[in-house]
Amino acid sequence: MKVARFKNSNGAVRTGIIQDGVVREIEGDLYSDYSLADTVYPLSEIAFLPPCAPSKIVAVGLNYKDHAAEMQKPLPEEPLIFLKPSTALIGHEDDIIYPDYMTSRVDFEGELAVVIGKETKWMNEDDWREHVFGFTCINDVSARDLQAKDGQFTRAKGFDTFAPMGPVIETELDPSALEIKTTLNGEVKQNSNTSRLIFPVPRIVSFISRVMTLLPGDVVATGTPSGVGPMQKGDTVEVKIEGIGVLRNYVK
Amino acid sequence: MKVARFKNSNGAVRTGIIQDGVVREIEGDLYSDYSLADTVYPLSEIAFLPPCAPSKIVAVGLNYKDHAAEMQKPLPEEPLIFLKPSTALIGHEDDIIYPDYMTSRVDFEGELAVVIGKETKWMNEDDWREHVFGFTCINDVSARDLQAKDGQFTRAKGFDTFAPMGPVIETELDPSALEIKTTLNGEVKQNSNTSRLIFPVPRIVSFISRVMTLLPGDVVATGTPSGVGPMQKGDTVEVKIEGIGVLRNYVK
Repeated sequence: MKVARFKNSNGAVRTGIIQDGVVREIEGDLYSDYSLADTVYPLSEIAFLPPCAPSKIVAVGLNYKDHAAEMQKPLPEEPLIFLKPSTALIGHEDDIIYPDYMTSRVDFEGELAVVIGKETKWMNEDDWREHVFGFTCINDVSARDLQAKDGQFTRAKGFDTFAPMGPVIETELDPSALEIKTTLNGEVKQNSNTSRLIFPVPRIVSFISRVMTLLPGDVVATGTPSGVGPMQKGDTVEVKIEGIGVLRNYVK
Repeated sequence: MKVARFKNSNGAVRTGIIQDGVVREIEGDLYSDYSLADTVYPLSEIAFLPPCAPSKIVAVGLNYKDHAAEMQKPLPEEPLIFLKPSTALIGHEDDIIYPDYMTSRVDFEGELAVVIGKETKWMNEDDWREHVFGFTCINDVSARDLQAKDGQFTRAKGFDTFAPMGPVIETELDPSALEIKTTLNGEVKQNSNTSRLIFPVPRIVSFISRVMTLLPGDVVATGTPSGVGPMQKGDTVEVKIEGIGVLRNYVK
């Protein structure tokens, strides 16, 4: 099942299920108890929002060997986690605003994102299916010069619009071997497979849940493969993950 | 005015104003339009929650010269920011749970916390009073061994219960010269004044607002003075700031 979040014609935020080319609104809580409503929208007419509204976005650094190599960093012994603020979120087809008053190097980082479905604390790896609601695409946009300057990733990865996410959540997906591709103006820049993750999804979620409680709608970004590189104003960036779809954004 | 957040006898979350030894409930939105309700509680009978429910906690590292010196770090040229997850929040008199399965060094860090009152993006320093709702105490609890191991602060400072905050928000306060003191089992460990902040409150909030939008209820922790040190199970830790009060927590 594919889940979208969007604004209706009155500007109200709605969640819906995509079926046969239309989006059918749901009523109730997506993560616990909901029902299908009668209202449907043509898929072509909705403006996508980020497909969930996380209380936090936990990201994993250096989780593909080839990316750790290109960043000239040693492989981590445990998942290396950091946070992106929820104010950085934008949806499919939204603009990434280049903060050129503070940075001159803004990179794309295509990643598989996990959407949590229930309160998760001290999760065993084997139980991940009960805790994960689904998967979406995220672009962990990063001001690389500030990342190097600060050491801490927060400023570099925390600007408004630096967390494009979507277009939808796919709930029926095995995350262990998905093709993941990032293109810039149509040219393939990152081309990998989630089978190459150093720490796979169950391990990451279990690890984080031993530190902090994950809540329904929270997002875990699983790390980016090699091929990261800069974007310029005017560029179009796409993150495509097998079974989910294409997240497209414009750099302004 | 002093603002508290608490659970009433039915377990419902309420916000109130402290007047003459009682807490008077408010109705409406604390940050925009509220009125005083008739319900009052004796101050001694309420269980304090964190005094606001932030969408994010932005913290500033190395913002007192003496603390930068004790950490053997150079003084930052700009505020060094990082995030703590909202799931780490606890209130006055709550327990800090020592995660001894993952760390063997958990430090206190007493800090002045700023509570944002309105949506804040690109704020001029001179306008800070319009954007800041008030001030409270925060303890930026930190697993020092993990902080050194990870480099990123997220895991070290992100455990559940690692952000004690309160007891109240004081809305009428000049933050430029407040005594700040942290005690462990009654012994003074940190004793400084916010006049020694490298980057004062207006500068910090302005800086952060050029990176990410701050929302009503968001919290900015302004950094800790020298004297940080470890806590053990059974310890009682207090952060006391002039004009706000005492935030007391127990290490379990």
